[in-house]
Amino acid sequence: MAPGVNNMDSLHNMPARAPTKTVSIGVVGLGRMGKRHAKTLLYRTPTAKLVAVCTISEVELAWAREFFAPGSGVTVYDSYDKMLQHQGLEAVWVSTSTDLHAPQANAAIAKGLHVLCEKPLSTSLEDAQSVVDAAEANPHLKVMAGYSRRFDASYREAKAKIEAGVIGTPFMVRSQTGDLRDDTGFFVRYAAKNGAVFVDCSIHDIDLTMWFLGDDLVPKTVFAIGTLTHHPELAQSRDVDNGIGVVEFWGGKMAYYYCSRTQAHGQDVATEIIGTHGKIMVNLIPRINHIQVASATGINHEVPPEYWERFEDAFATEANEFCDSILENKPVPVPMNLGVKGMKIAWALQHALWHNKSLHFDRNGNQIDGPAEN
Amino acid sequence: MAPGVNNMDSLHNMPARAPTKTVSIGVVGLGRMGKRHAKTLLYRTPTAKLVAVCTISEVELAWAREFFAPGSGVTVYDSYDKMLQHQGLEAVWVSTSTDLHAPQANAAIAKGLHVLCEKPLSTSLEDAQSVVDAAEANPHLKVMAGYSRRFDASYREAKAKIEAGVIGTPFMVRSQTGDLRDDTGFFVRYAAKNGAVFVDCSIHDIDLTMWFLGDDLVPKTVFAIGTLTHHPELAQSRDVDNGIGVVEFWGGKMAYYYCSRTQAHGQDVATEIIGTHGKIMVNLIPRINHIQVASATGINHEVPPEYWERFEDAFATEANEFCDSILENKPVPVPMNLGVKGMKIAWALQHALWHNKSLHFDRNGNQIDGPAEN
Amino acid sequence: MAPGVNNMDSLHNMPARAPTKTVSIGVVGLGRMGKRHAKTLLYRTPTAKLVAVCTISEVELAWAREFFAPGSGVTVYDSYDKMLQHQGLEAVWVSTSTDLHAPQANAAIAKGLHVLCEKPLSTSLEDAQSVVDAAEANPHLKVMAGYSRRFDASYREAKAKIEAGVIGTPFMVRSQTGDLRDDTGFFVRYAAKNGAVFVDCSIHDIDLTMWFLGDDLVPKTVFAIGTLTHHPELAQSRDVDNGIGVVEFWGGKMAYYYCSRTQAHGQDVATEIIGTHGKIMVNLIPRINHIQVASATGINHEVPPEYWERFEDAFATEANEFCDSILENKPVPVPMNLGVKGMKIAWALQHALWHNKSLHFDRNGNQIDGPAEN
Amino acid sequence: MAPGVNNMDSLHNMPARAPTKTVSIGVVGLGRMGKRHAKTLLYRTPTAKLVAVCTISEVELAWAREFFAPGSGVTVYDSYDKMLQHQGLEAVWVSTSTDLHAPQANAAIAKGLHVLCEKPLSTSLEDAQSVVDAAEANPHLKVMAGYSRRFDASYREAKAKIEAGVIGTPFMVRSQTGDLRDDTGFFVRYAAKNGAVFVDCSIHDIDLTMWFLGDDLVPKTVFAIGTLTHHPELAQSRDVDNGIGVVEFWGGKMAYYYCSRTQAHGQDVATEIIGTHGKIMVNLIPRINHIQVASATGINHEVPPEYWERFEDAFATEANEFCDSILENKPVPVPMNLGVKGMKIAWALQHALWHNKSLHFDRNGNQIDGPAEN
Repeated sequence: MAPGVNNMDSLHNMPARAPTKTVSIGVVGLGRMGKRHAKTLLYRTPTAKLVAVCTISEVELAWAREFFAPGSGVTVYDSYDKMLQHQGLEAVWVSTSTDLHAPQANAAIAKGLHVLCEKPLSTSLEDAQSVVDAAEANPHLKVMAGYSRRFDASYREAKAKIEAGVIGTPFMVRSQTGDLRDDTGFFVRYAAKNGAVFVDCSIHDIDLTMWFLGDDLVPKTVFAIGTLTHHPELAQSRDVDNGIGVVEFWGGKMAYYYCSRTQAHGQDVATEIIGTHGKIMVNLIPRINHIQVASATGINHEVPPEYWERFEDAFATEANEFCDSILENKPVPVPMNLGVKGMKIAWALQHALWHNKSLHFDRNGNQIDGPAEN
Repeated sequence: MAPGVNNMDSLHNMPARAPTKTVSIGVVGLGRMGKRHAKTLLYRTPTAKLVAVCTISEVELAWAREFFAPGSGVTVYDSYDKMLQHQGLEAVWVSTSTDLHAPQANAAIAKGLHVLCEKPLSTSLEDAQSVVDAAEANPHLKVMAGYSRRFDASYREAKAKIEAGVIGTPFMVRSQTGDLRDDTGFFVRYAAKNGAVFVDCSIHDIDLTMWFLGDDLVPKTVFAIGTLTHHPELAQSRDVDNGIGVVEFWGGKMAYYYCSRTQAHGQDVATEIIGTHGKIMVNLIPRINHIQVASATGINHEVPPEYWERFEDAFATEANEFCDSILENKPVPVPMNLGVKGMKIAWALQHALWHNKSLHFDRNGNQIDGPAEN
Repeated sequence: MAPGVNNMDSLHNMPARAPTKTVSIGVVGLGRMGKRHAKTLLYRTPTAKLVAVCTISEVELAWAREFFAPGSGVTVYDSYDKMLQHQGLEAVWVSTSTDLHAPQANAAIAKGLHVLCEKPLSTSLEDAQSVVDAAEANPHLKVMAGYSRRFDASYREAKAKIEAGVIGTPFMVRSQTGDLRDDTGFFVRYAAKNGAVFVDCSIHDIDLTMWFLGDDLVPKTVFAIGTLTHHPELAQSRDVDNGIGVVEFWGGKMAYYYCSRTQAHGQDVATEIIGTHGKIMVNLIPRINHIQVASATGINHEVPPEYWERFEDAFATEANEFCDSILENKPVPVPMNLGVKGMKIAWALQHALWHNKSLHFDRNGNQIDGPAEN
Repeated sequence: MAPGVNNMDSLHNMPARAPTKTVSIGVVGLGRMGKRHAKTLLYRTPTAKLVAVCTISEVELAWAREFFAPGSGVTVYDSYDKMLQHQGLEAVWVSTSTDLHAPQANAAIAKGLHVLCEKPLSTSLEDAQSVVDAAEANPHLKVMAGYSRRFDASYREAKAKIEAGVIGTPFMVRSQTGDLRDDTGFFVRYAAKNGAVFVDCSIHDIDLTMWFLGDDLVPKTVFAIGTLTHHPELAQSRDVDNGIGVVEFWGGKMAYYYCSRTQAHGQDVATEIIGTHGKIMVNLIPRINHIQVASATGINHEVPPEYWERFEDAFATEANEFCDSILENKPVPVPMNLGVKGMKIAWALQHALWHNKSLHFDRNGNQIDGPAEN
């Protein structure tokens, strides 16, 4: 809502009606994000009824058995197949490592369950496409890609302003995903299962680009470079811990990205959308709260250590809208095929990086030179 | 949590356990804030079970009957007495106009119900004290003053930093509560029932002062001035729409406040805590999200239109902690007597304004000159 | 100039004409600021010809004799009387301690010289008035009060926006002057000669108030409190190192001030001007340059250690406009009598602090109660 | 100076000594920047004596004859050759269009004059090299490239912090040069003589990259894309009005650039230097002064319309340091050959743009594929 509008008596920000129904939902994967999704479903999604969780990790199982004590109404499974047979289960939230996303999503669809599948859909384009195909073959099921930034209030306001013409015609996006440098070894373990940096990180920025510049964008040329500054182990998987990618689209639009695993200060996700008559800046100077501290060294503010602190509200909105789409039989807010489109650009960047050369596409988006796409 | 800490695998920000019990709660008053509290209890407080709401306003009743449709599990009452007899009701959230806070809180206590009472406790110090007395006479009941800012993440972080010694010894607070200028007539109606500006607005700033400088603060001298710039109708109640208050405490500590009903840009609640080795600034430049728009007129960002947008999370935390105090039989986070202490300072400011002179207190906090306190 | 205006070919910010004449000027007092004024006259004031400097301090004399080496064209004097007889001297910049301002200004006027006299004009209202009287008796001389903030680009832009109606009718000013805490002992020596805190510091904020709200403002009520947190030696002169002052003006306008000698982070001069339709904020978050550093502790920026870094450009503008007023025989930008008006309010605040009570004025600005004014 | 340092008595920021000598200097070119350089030499460079200016433009001549009235001490020339023969001339500031920089710099050197030559040195690498060669052949002359950002206080502080290890090892630079969109036709006329966008704009960002990451950087791969959004006339010269460039250096360092001629809000020059332990952000949110205005549309601040407002102080520092290098026979702060090195990268970006492909260099910096360099 525009500030300055007098809405003293209004119901601004209120749902239309108190919830009267719920979706029975299970979460698979209880790592860093799985736990948080479970919390979001319990604490901030009145239309969700969390009935089951599943993991094969002993550590995660131990946590789950304590957290979901009797009386919580949540059954803990150590087998995904068993969870899929949970009585009354209606939907699954797939929050495992990327290599499991596609097979688990497909298994849930095969069981007639709605699915929210974390991004990226897969480390392989073929597997990702198989989920899209399964979703299209089951139009009665809600199958949704977990592009959480599309649910963030700031990015939504950016989208609304663009549509309102505030910056004229948008023609360019700069976007970056920077993660806190990890000194614990967690990240190297994580990376082994979650794909290269453009596919794991920049895919969010690519998705935002399509959202802001037009879902009909066709890439024309891509290029990428990268470097290893903190995680030499990544060389084994030909990955980098800091990368820069550039995408030129047919029709004169452009985007450029920075992805980093080594930000000293925390989570630094910033986006600029530039138009003919203005630009929108989202989170150029990250901050975790409303505090600044003045002391002998200057004025300091802290930043979110992780994307959770930055996007916690967005995850809650995502969960609520996913449940709404099921309860009210509406289209999902982020259809599955969008995820595949972004993955193609992400993989092209990865290939440009590996081969140290620009790659080119025809007007239909088919790559016309260089290495095979995947 | 401090940024820069690697907590990749941690359960940061997670509750200790999934909820297994709930508190059956009723909300009385469904005006601007009552509706929002109801939403908070429904959407963001898994340990609350909203079972009843109550209002005598026809407009609010019509809304409530539509919002709480059958199946929502919420009974709509048009009589507070009837709601108090709701089967299984355990707690009441008092969110009516200020003149009703004390009698309704007292009635609920008399029924053996827990109470969360919105600030200020009353427009009269005697009535406020009666709630404190009733609470003390019923120590098994959780009776809590609704000082929502104490639940705000930024103010809590400020408190934590002060306790950690980040600014040395704090000796001074500047705090302001500025509301969006209302051109609809809502505010003048609101003001008739909610008390003068220092008692309605600055009471938050006074409460923060005690929290940051010490709950044992004793006022020594107060002074206040004010002016009417937009709501001449307030002259009837000797109120102002912009006021400045100053409080000197015994022992060399100080505070000064600005309260305004006429901010053109929206909700502007800012606080500075100044210590011997630094200062903490909370929300000096208000902003509603992470967006800035650059255009031909410069770079612009929007601000929250109301305190709801600024403090929505704080209200959710407040509701959760109130329920926790009941379920786990813990002390309430904001005991009722704190509310009365702040009210005394607020009323002294109001009197200083009315009589255009400084008022003085002895070391026990008893006023030693000027008009009677109330 | 408004941003967004295309002025590619314009002479924006250019003087009308290259200088062809200069004013021969002498600086008396070569302390912290005297040195800087000398530099400003040498480096940034092409219409000034610095011909003489004067100090009775041995330390300052030693510095001056080395700095103004032969060839610099500047004669170093150890006697103010001798400097006043310097051949061809046209103007004097009085930059000694406050107790000397008035007699030195009067001596220069008596010699037929133009005078720029640093604020405050005196520690005594009578002495200050004597300079005003001398100036009025010599209308051919340019006699100017050194309220440097009136030459600052940001404050000037604030003034221009107010006059353009950007914030509607301004009715209130909040302004603060915070100096870096001094641990060297310099400040205590300085304070002995430069007056109490409201007279030395807040006088700038008072002057800004009159500039922004109207030079015809008449005080109605003043009040002040203060505390000693770092310089207990100031108790001897009944001074404080942190003070808060409030001024209500006849007609519904208000101002409040904070002055501090103990800011941990540096120079913190901030001003808000609040009107019926907006507010202008000047320097709410001080910063010394365009840099922010992100590191494991968050994002930090530095602040000016002294007012010099904040107002260096303003001092240059002041020097240029003073010389212009002489060369072009124009009125001085800050007439002497303004300085006395602000001093009266500053002294009233000081008295309210000493007597711990509000003081009152009639519509003509005459104090109607309390202690004598000075 | 670090904030928080007590330097109450210090001579911080003072020159070592009052000037006793001057350099007689002439300015050639009196367009937008030539006028400003003349002003800087007159108003802010006490060691410069502006004795001559020169232009062949009738419009500029008319301005100059009025501005430099008799008594200003400045002779106005309509012929560069004539100005070079001005009696006592010691140095020339070349501020004409880029196509004239090299021949005019060479002519001045041939006359035995010191030269400050605006960037870029030429639109041709060969011509640029000829100036470098001439400078090296005349080591007694001070010949300096006008990379003004190296004199900016913020960039200098960034450099100092990098050298102090504040961000660990810097490995990456993001830098952008965005100019206000021109609707007057000025820019299209300007572009015809001043070269393509990477050579005219990004050359500053490239120069900063070398300064921050190491002057020994050798490019490995470059790539660039661009688009035309506002100035279709630029298509004739194969130029774009918005471009993105990426440079990978041998050794794992990287840079990426954005250059734009169409910023709606004004001059937007921002730089980030990213290291292993932090990053330095310079001017991420541009602002022209210390003001923010809160009104019904939010909180707004203005930005510099041109680089002059952003870098005016830097130009003054540049002029002073150039004169100092002559008077004290010190090395110039920005030697000429640095300019050529940056130009090579800028031209490679321009070629990558034109050919829509990445270009590659060997470890000696020789291009190993693609089109000839120029």
